[in-house]
Amino acid sequence: MARAITAVEDRTKESHELLRALFPYSGRARVVGLTGAPGSGKSTLTDQLAREYRKRQQSVGIVAVDPTSPFTGGAILGDRIRMQRHHADPGIYIRSMATRGSLGGLASTTADVATVLDASGRDVVLIETVGVGQDEVDIVRLADVTLVILVPGMGDDVQSIKAGIMEIADIFVINKSDREGADRVEREVRALQSTAPPRGATGADDAAMESWTPPVVKTVASEGRGISELAVAIAQYEAFLETSGLGRHRRIESWRVRLVEMLRVALMQRVRRDYLTEAAGRELAAKIAAHECDPYTVLEEILGRFGFG
Amino acid sequence: MARAITAVEDRTKESHELLRALFPYSGRARVVGLTGAPGSGKSTLTDQLAREYRKRQQSVGIVAVDPTSPFTGGAILGDRIRMQRHHADPGIYIRSMATRGSLGGLASTTADVATVLDASGRDVVLIETVGVGQDEVDIVRLADVTLVILVPGMGDDVQSIKAGIMEIADIFVINKSDREGADRVEREVRALQSTAPPRGATGADDAAMESWTPPVVKTVASEGRGISELAVAIAQYEAFLETSGLGRHRRIESWRVRLVEMLRVALMQRVRRDYLTEAAGRELAAKIAAHECDPYTVLEEILGRFGFG
Repeated sequence: MARAITAVEDRTKESHELLRALFPYSGRARVVGLTGAPGSGKSTLTDQLAREYRKRQQSVGIVAVDPTSPFTGGAILGDRIRMQRHHADPGIYIRSMATRGSLGGLASTTADVATVLDASGRDVVLIETVGVGQDEVDIVRLADVTLVILVPGMGDDVQSIKAGIMEIADIFVINKSDREGADRVEREVRALQSTAPPRGATGADDAAMESWTPPVVKTVASEGRGISELAVAIAQYEAFLETSGLGRHRRIESWRVRLVEMLRVALMQRVRRDYLTEAAGRELAAKIAAHECDPYTVLEEILGRFGFG
Repeated sequence: MARAITAVEDRTKESHELLRALFPYSGRARVVGLTGAPGSGKSTLTDQLAREYRKRQQSVGIVAVDPTSPFTGGAILGDRIRMQRHHADPGIYIRSMATRGSLGGLASTTADVATVLDASGRDVVLIETVGVGQDEVDIVRLADVTLVILVPGMGDDVQSIKAGIMEIADIFVINKSDREGADRVEREVRALQSTAPPRGATGADDAAMESWTPPVVKTVASEGRGISELAVAIAQYEAFLETSGLGRHRRIESWRVRLVEMLRVALMQRVRRDYLTEAAGRELAAKIAAHECDPYTVLEEILGRFGFG
C-alpha cells in the first residue's frame, strides 16, 4: 500500500497503469472530508472517528493533507506517532501527504490516493486537511461528506472562518466543546445559516440541498465525547445522499472536476518535458526580464505548436 | 484602469493584446508583497505604507487578494471603503481581486494586474494577501520584496505560522506591537532564524541570501507608528537586491514561474474550449461515475489528440 501511494504521489509512469488497474475495484468506500483551522483538533477528531468505525468492524484509511507547509517535510514522523496511537491496528491505515509545490494537482493527487485506499477495500476513507485556502476547498469537494470543524475561543470565532469554508459544510463539528463559548459558536453557525444564500453552485445542488440543513455536532475529541453522535450524523447524511439523488450528482460533479485537473497535470508534465524544459524556461525568462521579448508573444508561439490559435 | 484590470481578471481575448501592448512600459515599479494571517492588520498596514510613499511623492497601486473566500464577492464594497480612507487621492489606486475558483492561475492573474499598474506608471505596487496556503506563497513569490506580518497574542504566535510562510520573508513586521507579547514574538523569530536551514531553493539564492538576515520591524499600523522605519527597511532591501544581483536573479525566476503558469492557464482555456467542454466533461464524468469507463483511459485518449503518448 505504502509503495502504491508513493508511486501515485510521485506520478511515476507506473502509477498510471496502477490506477487504471485499481479503478474497477474502487467506488465502494465512503469518503469523508474533515477540514478546520490549525489547532482545531482535526487529527485527534479524525483518529477518534477512525476508532468509532473500527468498533463497527469497518476498515479505515486516513489521508492527512497539509498544504500550508510547502517547503518542509516531517510527514513520515507524524504518521509513525499517529500509527502508534492505534497500536498498529491493521484496520486503520494512515498516510500523510507531502505537498508537491507549484506543480499543483494536490486535490487530484489526494483523490488518487483515496482511490488506492478505496480499491484496497477500506470501508471508509477519511481525508483531513487544514481549512484555509482554495486547495482545501478543492480537496474536500472530492469527498462524499464534508465536516467543517470549529472550536470555541479562536479570535472572532465563526466570523474568522472564511465564507468559502463555511459553505462547503455538510456537517459542522464544534470540537473542544467543553471550552467556554461553545454555545456561542453554535448560535453563530445558526445565525450564519439563516442568512446564508442558497447552497451549491448548480441548480441540481440547490434543489437537493433545500432539504438538508447541516447539523451541528459537539465533540471533545481528546476524550472521545460526541464521536458516536458524529458517526450517526454522517450516516444520516450518507442516507440523504442516496435518497435525494444528490450522491450520484456529487460523484459526477467530482469526476468532472477531477478529469479537468488530471488533464491539467498530465498536459503540463508533458509540456515541460517536450516544449518548456527547465533550461528553456530559464532562457526565455531571462530574455523577458531583460525586456528583449514579451511573454505574451512567447506564449502564443508555444500554443501555436499545439495547433491553438 | 479599472476596465483594463477587469479585462485581465476575466482573461478576455482583448486582455492578451492589452498586456502585450503594456509590457514595454512595465518593469519600473517596485513590487512589495505583504502577507499575514487574518486579523494581523494587513490592510491597515498596506494603507499606511501607501501613505508613507505618497509623502515621498511616489504613486502607489494596491492589489488586495484573498483566496480564502472562493464563493463570495464583496470586494467592490471593500475597495470603496478603503478608497474613502485615502480621500480619493488619485495617487493611490486600490483594487481587490475576486478569486476565480478552480480555473486557478490566481498568482498569474495577480502578476498581470500588477503589470497593468506598473505600466500605468505607479512607482510602487503593493500586493497584500492572506498568508495561509500555497496560493499565497505563489503570489508573494512574484514580488521583489516580501513582508511577513506577525502579531502578538495570536495563539502559539510564531509557531502557528507555517514554515512555508516564515521562509519567504525578506522583512518581518510585528504589527500591533503595543500589545503584550511583541518582544516574545521578536525573540521567537530570532530563534527561528538561528535554527533555520539556508534560505532559497536554488544555489544562486543561497549564496546571495547569506548576507541578508530579514530584519524585524515593529509597527502599530492603526496609529501610523513604525511605518517610516518599515519604508526604510524596504528601501535597504531594495538596495541589497540591486547590489547583490539577487534582484535580477529573482526577476528571472519570477518570469520562469509566471511563464509556466501562463501556459498552464492558456492551455486549459483552449482545451476546455476545443476538447473538453462543460457538456463533454459532464458526459464523460457520468460514465466514469457509473464505472462504464475509467478516467485514465479517457485521459490518454485526450492527450493522444495532442500527439502526446
